[in-house]
Amino acid sequence: MSRYTSIEHNKFLLQEVHQVTDIFSLPRFAHLNWEEAWMMIEAAKLLADRDMAPYFKEMDAQPALYDGNGGVKTHPQLKTIIHQAAENGWIGGGASFDHGGMQLPMMIFNAAQHIFMAANNSCQGYFSLSAGSAALITSFGTQEQINTFVPNIFAGKWQGTMALTEPQAGSSLTDITTSAKPMGDGFYKIKGQKIFISGGQHEACSNFVHLTLARIEGAPAGVKGISLFIIPKFWPEKDGTLTPNDVFCAGDFQKMGQRGYCTTHLVFGDKDECKGWLVGEPHKGLPYMFQMMNEARISVGLDAASVAMAAYQASLQYTSERPQGRLASEKDPLKPPTLIINHPDVQRMLLTQKAIAEGALSLVMECNRLSDLVHGTEGEAKKNSLLLLELLTPIVKTYSSEQGSRSASLAIQTLGGYGFTMDFPVQQHYRDLKIMSLYEGTTGIQSIDLLGRKVVMEKGKALAILGEQIQAAIQSASQLSALKKNAKQLETEWTRIQQVLAQLSTFAPTSIDRYLADATVFMEQLSYVVIAWQWLKQAIVAQRNIDAGNFKNQSQSFYEGKVVTMKFFFRYELTHAAACAQTLLDEEFLTNVKKKELFD
Amino acid sequence: MSRYTSIEHNKFLLQEVHQVTDIFSLPRFAHLNWEEAWMMIEAAKLLADRDMAPYFKEMDAQPALYDGNGGVKTHPQLKTIIHQAAENGWIGGGASFDHGGMQLPMMIFNAAQHIFMAANNSCQGYFSLSAGSAALITSFGTQEQINTFVPNIFAGKWQGTMALTEPQAGSSLTDITTSAKPMGDGFYKIKGQKIFISGGQHEACSNFVHLTLARIEGAPAGVKGISLFIIPKFWPEKDGTLTPNDVFCAGDFQKMGQRGYCTTHLVFGDKDECKGWLVGEPHKGLPYMFQMMNEARISVGLDAASVAMAAYQASLQYTSERPQGRLASEKDPLKPPTLIINHPDVQRMLLTQKAIAEGALSLVMECNRLSDLVHGTEGEAKKNSLLLLELLTPIVKTYSSEQGSRSASLAIQTLGGYGFTMDFPVQQHYRDLKIMSLYEGTTGIQSIDLLGRKVVMEKGKALAILGEQIQAAIQSASQLSALKKNAKQLETEWTRIQQVLAQLSTFAPTSIDRYLADATVFMEQLSYVVIAWQWLKQAIVAQRNIDAGNFKNQSQSFYEGKVVTMKFFFRYELTHAAACAQTLLDEEFLTNVKKKELFD
Repeated sequence: MSRYTSIEHNKFLLQEVHQVTDIFSLPRFAHLNWEEAWMMIEAAKLLADRDMAPYFKEMDAQPALYDGNGGVKTHPQLKTIIHQAAENGWIGGGASFDHGGMQLPMMIFNAAQHIFMAANNSCQGYFSLSAGSAALITSFGTQEQINTFVPNIFAGKWQGTMALTEPQAGSSLTDITTSAKPMGDGFYKIKGQKIFISGGQHEACSNFVHLTLARIEGAPAGVKGISLFIIPKFWPEKDGTLTPNDVFCAGDFQKMGQRGYCTTHLVFGDKDECKGWLVGEPHKGLPYMFQMMNEARISVGLDAASVAMAAYQASLQYTSERPQGRLASEKDPLKPPTLIINHPDVQRMLLTQKAIAEGALSLVMECNRLSDLVHGTEGEAKKNSLLLLELLTPIVKTYSSEQGSRSASLAIQTLGGYGFTMDFPVQQHYRDLKIMSLYEGTTGIQSIDLLGRKVVMEKGKALAILGEQIQAAIQSASQLSALKKNAKQLETEWTRIQQVLAQLSTFAPTSIDRYLADATVFMEQLSYVVIAWQWLKQAIVAQRNIDAGNFKNQSQSFYEGKVVTMKFFFRYELTHAAACAQTLLDEEFLTNVKKKELFD
Repeated sequence: MSRYTSIEHNKFLLQEVHQVTDIFSLPRFAHLNWEEAWMMIEAAKLLADRDMAPYFKEMDAQPALYDGNGGVKTHPQLKTIIHQAAENGWIGGGASFDHGGMQLPMMIFNAAQHIFMAANNSCQGYFSLSAGSAALITSFGTQEQINTFVPNIFAGKWQGTMALTEPQAGSSLTDITTSAKPMGDGFYKIKGQKIFISGGQHEACSNFVHLTLARIEGAPAGVKGISLFIIPKFWPEKDGTLTPNDVFCAGDFQKMGQRGYCTTHLVFGDKDECKGWLVGEPHKGLPYMFQMMNEARISVGLDAASVAMAAYQASLQYTSERPQGRLASEKDPLKPPTLIINHPDVQRMLLTQKAIAEGALSLVMECNRLSDLVHGTEGEAKKNSLLLLELLTPIVKTYSSEQGSRSASLAIQTLGGYGFTMDFPVQQHYRDLKIMSLYEGTTGIQSIDLLGRKVVMEKGKALAILGEQIQAAIQSASQLSALKKNAKQLETEWTRIQQVLAQLSTFAPTSIDRYLADATVFMEQLSYVVIAWQWLKQAIVAQRNIDAGNFKNQSQSFYEGKVVTMKFFFRYELTHAAACAQTLLDEEFLTNVKKKELFD
């Protein structure tokens, strides 16, 4: 079996960089210890090796396909995969004991999801979507709703989905028109269409539970008039029988990548008989949905980083095994060719991939830790963790997806022409990855969320908390002579973030459009800084172990690899943060072109 | 029909920026004038509209496929396409009258090829490869070889190919082992295998003429022992009949993109009966092949820029037609949604695409002009044109392919989720584009060529010529008040190129590996500067017309669009040149990692 992730890196992040044992000391998670938790991760790896990774290519070659009459044909292995994931707790494991879960910290739950995503990103979505839908019901649904749907979802028998996007509205949720007409008792007659519904119809589950946004008749316009409904394909009656609901799958989008993961078009109420069940209060659907959306954004960040990791591993394996060409210093053509990995430019491409994938994975783990602190603490600690988590969410989603695509492109590049052929997995990683910058809000939307909401919320408190954490890392790194230079560089870049925000904020009072125009460039600048922080954190741990000669958790070369990669990131990637700043500090407003003809 | 290129931009480059009429004043091209030449381009557009563009999607959906027994099934339209291209002079048009061509300048020839590539990049390769092979034969072959092969290739009846890569050697041509044993009279018995041979076997031509690199028995090791052979699939006897040659197509690689363009695996001499015909002198095959290779590199640059242009046009059309969401300043959800193009972040993505595609196309045109000067002038003028052309060749290939991929990624992004579906062409552009950074030498190889050979050849004379031309543009721009600031920025970045080279050159004497380690980063830095120069040239013409109120060739908004895009490039893209410099000026050598374990 080809390697698709580094289990050691996973361990390093959990155990040493983000110290999951702190989390085990919180009452909510006190039932766990390191040995048990790690055993779960190792079991997840075996599961992925056996049931997921071997079907990665097949699920692409035999994509999900609409049958012309409401059904979607999926790969036969999918049923086993969903069943096995459920059986092993990887759908409901994050839920509390009360709700039939294993009360796992997100750090552990997502360390396993990472393995599944790296093994086969076309299958992991099915159960991660189920997990998210069930969490939404447990958070805001009634006990009856929880009892009706959650156990079946956790058992992998029913598929949960999130149904937001509509054909005419796209990213603009303000404009959704799916309607809900009260029938009494919290039930509503639903009418409307939803597109891009992942997992919306397939052969591996017997029922589909669509968490759907719709407007109750007479609701206010805009996002303040949106409510959340449960719309099952088959309605579970009180006696346990299932009655067909008026939910029809009208198609499955054929895609460039993630072809094993179906993307459906759903029609609710074509015969005027679609019944939905209101979740929580009317008109509060969007805030509810944002719980799931925020988790989904982190999950997409994890997915992107995981696929980038898989591509990196394939690239590393190929270049380590195959000889080709000679170093420039070797002029004798009779000398045998050297391994591809020995060429400096190939090392540059490998280190770029390692820097992106492992840097992004570390940031995801930081987010998981914050999420665990939100769930496991109270008061100020909880509040601050939530603020920082909210700030980092759009960043982890965007950095991983945008840079992940670039990373997979480099993976192809290291394989040369072979990388472009269907004989090797890297082209599939590249194709699969492109969806990540579109899922759950495009890069543009994430960037507007970052600059327009997260940076300014509570008078910039989230950013201040981030600043404190970055300063703490700079402080620690400054004490290690090997890292002094890098600590200084991060300090400079952090200061530059302040300068940029000071300048941008002058636009906000007069023109919010101008303030937000370059949000994506600001996202890029801040992402470099945040990933640099994650790399510095990794390097501090690694360097301390090297200095102390402590190699009980990882080998010396593992730690040296971390330090080299951090230095690489600072030299080849972080340098571009200043370029973003230069763009942002330019006061001219070029992207308010009024005449469409200027683009011709 | 959807728009896939801007014919106006083509006209602007030919007529105003790169002044093709100068070229018509050279004796070799004096038979042409602007009106005639432009009529040819317009006819090429009609041909592409009718015979190529409508098959873009189909040729991807029904890819070239090996039949299991030496044949490759291709799309039925391919025969019409090759026939029509031949008929209209787009295979042999660049050749001299002597050789049955139309003696067209490359500026005109490639302006038409651009249209074909943008319309359907899976078909254009077939005839551009034929054109290149024929040019190789006319340059170095005997009159008999020319008479035997060239007319049939120009007529589109026979397919020309270039056969370099071997399974065990990949990019390292030093290591090719295909052997050639003299049979007398310039004929050789050939034995060996070649992979990744584009156009190597299909249904639209009756014979295949493989321009093949092989080693004559007893030849010196390395690249100095490589000879060039013509190996036809069917041997043309003196009486005009065709005898089967021992050339077997053993497979067709299935690829992520350019799926209509076959990529074959050829076996020569499996029955020990493969006959090849030596071209030129023994052991000079590589320098000969480099004529074709250099043209092919520019052609790949053009192809990449053309596909990026097609993706941009699709992106522009979609965003100009579809309303979605509201500006941040519009808080009223009852107001109708605005067109997608009106969102600043979308304009940023559109301008990025325009800047990349049109900037790259301008650089290709600069190269075509230099190529015409090489063919149409003598003495110092010829020599200087060749030097600059050689310097720019790896840059145009690399910038267009690397940034073209990024550009197509942004095209997908502007379409949101739809961009990832097979219902829209942008995902195909994205898939097709990825091969461009691998064709004819990867980005790493181009970068080593640039820094290791082109920058230093003739004591840096090529770079000095580039410097003079950049200074001339800076000078002209400085006289226009609207462009002063940009002229100054380019001046700064040009100076930084010198600083970087001064520093890098300190490594060269002691370690060539260190000198070349970051060649790709230097490529990136110099590319930004070179494309900025092309944008400044375009903006100078545009601004002068605006200042003079001269809108006889193009509309005012067309010119304004050029100036805006130049300013956009300088602000959002050129700013990253300094980041590359910062990386390059760091003296640490990170990419000589000796222990493979550090990558784990």
